Amino acid sequence: MRACQARVERVLDALLPAHGAAPASLRDGMRYAVLGGGKRLRALLAYAAAECTQVPTRGADAIAAAVELIHAYSLVHDDMPCMDDDAMRRGKPTVHVQFGEATALLVGDTLQCFAFEVLTADATLDPARCAQMVLALARASGADGMAGGQAIDLASLGGPLDLPALERMHRMKTGALITASVALPGVLAGADADTRTTLDTYAAHVGLAFQVVDDVLDATADQATLGKTPGKDAQNAKPTYASELGIDAATRFAFDLRDRALAALAPLGPRAARLADLARFVVARPS
Amino acid sequence: MRACQARVERVLDALLPAHGAAPASLRDGMRYAVLGGGKRLRALLAYAAAECTQVPTRGADAIAAAVELIHAYSLVHDDMPCMDDDAMRRGKPTVHVQFGEATALLVGDTLQCFAFEVLTADATLDPARCAQMVLALARASGADGMAGGQAIDLASLGGPLDLPALERMHRMKTGALITASVALPGVLAGADADTRTTLDTYAAHVGLAFQVVDDVLDATADQATLGKTPGKDAQNAKPTYASELGIDAATRFAFDLRDRALAALAPLGPRAARLADLARFVVARPS
Repeated sequence: MRACQARVERVLDALLPAHGAAPASLRDGMRYAVLGGGKRLRALLAYAAAECTQVPTRGADAIAAAVELIHAYSLVHDDMPCMDDDAMRRGKPTVHVQFGEATALLVGDTLQCFAFEVLTADATLDPARCAQMVLALARASGADGMAGGQAIDLASLGGPLDLPALERMHRMKTGALITASVALPGVLAGADADTRTTLDTYAAHVGLAFQVVDDVLDATADQATLGKTPGKDAQNAKPTYASELGIDAATRFAFDLRDRALAALAPLGPRAARLADLARFVVARPS
Repeated sequence: MRACQARVERVLDALLPAHGAAPASLRDGMRYAVLGGGKRLRALLAYAAAECTQVPTRGADAIAAAVELIHAYSLVHDDMPCMDDDAMRRGKPTVHVQFGEATALLVGDTLQCFAFEVLTADATLDPARCAQMVLALARASGADGMAGGQAIDLASLGGPLDLPALERMHRMKTGALITASVALPGVLAGADADTRTTLDTYAAHVGLAFQVVDDVLDATADQATLGKTPGKDAQNAKPTYASELGIDAATRFAFDLRDRALAALAPLGPRAARLADLARFVVARPS
């Protein structure tokens, strides 16, 4: 896992502009937002799924970088004052605190299109499959995926949200991009329909487990462990798995989702070993 | 021209979600931001370049919609309080005034990835060329294109900017997307290198002419004609072609750029007639 985290860090460092036509503030903001932090869960899932579907290194690198870029852009925008108004992220000041709101807005915008550039810039990858990956990643990021989930989240602040609605919100807000991280290697590999369905099922369980654990940690961890401001959900009267189920039942639910993810992988045999490790990691992570 | 404007409006109306998983505020905001307004210059250029390079209807529609979606997203974000803080756009309240800042941020984010979805969702188009179009549009939108130009614009507020720096800023901020609007049909058609270079040269002149005219109109037109708040540039002490050259010399410069755009088209003969019409339109437009 540490090797994969270091690898996507190197890949992103090499891809992100250090020179170019844009002002230094934008380039520095992009690098600040992306490099040097985070669990890189989406990259880890992409590398594990790439190993499972036998995607070569360069394809895995492009996918891992693209999903981390989309994730980084969403964090920059979600942290802005008009959204969650968060001052800390990954143990350091958020982008708008460090660079100002206008630059943060542009940094997020630029990271988003950079993800699609990264998916299509490597001429050694099959271009038709790259187009399919763009389609899948764009859908995962859009109105029926991440951005739509964030809009539901915003609309629910302070209001009641029953468990099915909470689950639907999380499947869009975080689940869609996690599913794309696992699905894109299958697309690039041209994996058969059964394998792709298996990967999607696994990813849906892991994505929801991740969010349930996130909710529990927000309610129980301290800032040093979390790297961001804890207790924000309760402060915002935001419905979460922790608030709706209680800490104990939410924790049991996360373990149940892990077991379902592991069961889903069975048909893939040993080549899914790293995906299985990640399902275990998601529910055992300290932050 | 009216027929093309009506056509891209129909295409966008059919593409934009009216139902779906996202909350109504996001879907309504997307439609509000995109439909019912604007000159559709980028769509007109895309249709004219598609006619010139013999791209079939569906390909032209996808390109025209994608470039208008990128343009619409950039307007939503540029109008936000942390950027230009504009209350009026296309004769109606801006998206953040109508829907709130958080929704405006998400609307812009969603429109951006929707552009890449639209470029890759039509299974009748050559997928390898779709991937090339994604790459070109992503680069035109990013740090070395539109977003980079906007960052230079922000950094220059109130400060001096000499003419070469002003030109470079505009070639990135508006020129890159205008160039992409003309270039993408050539990519999808698989046009030869000479044709693509010709189209790029034409687009560079037209893009800059458009911006020079925009600067002149901001200094001379009223709100009813402009559809947005006039005089913002002077109010923000923003360097423009109008402020740097004066109205008369800026107007002459725009006509000179038009003539260079027309001269560039010569090798393409009559199939470039509509592109030539658009070069004339850009410098003659009332708003």
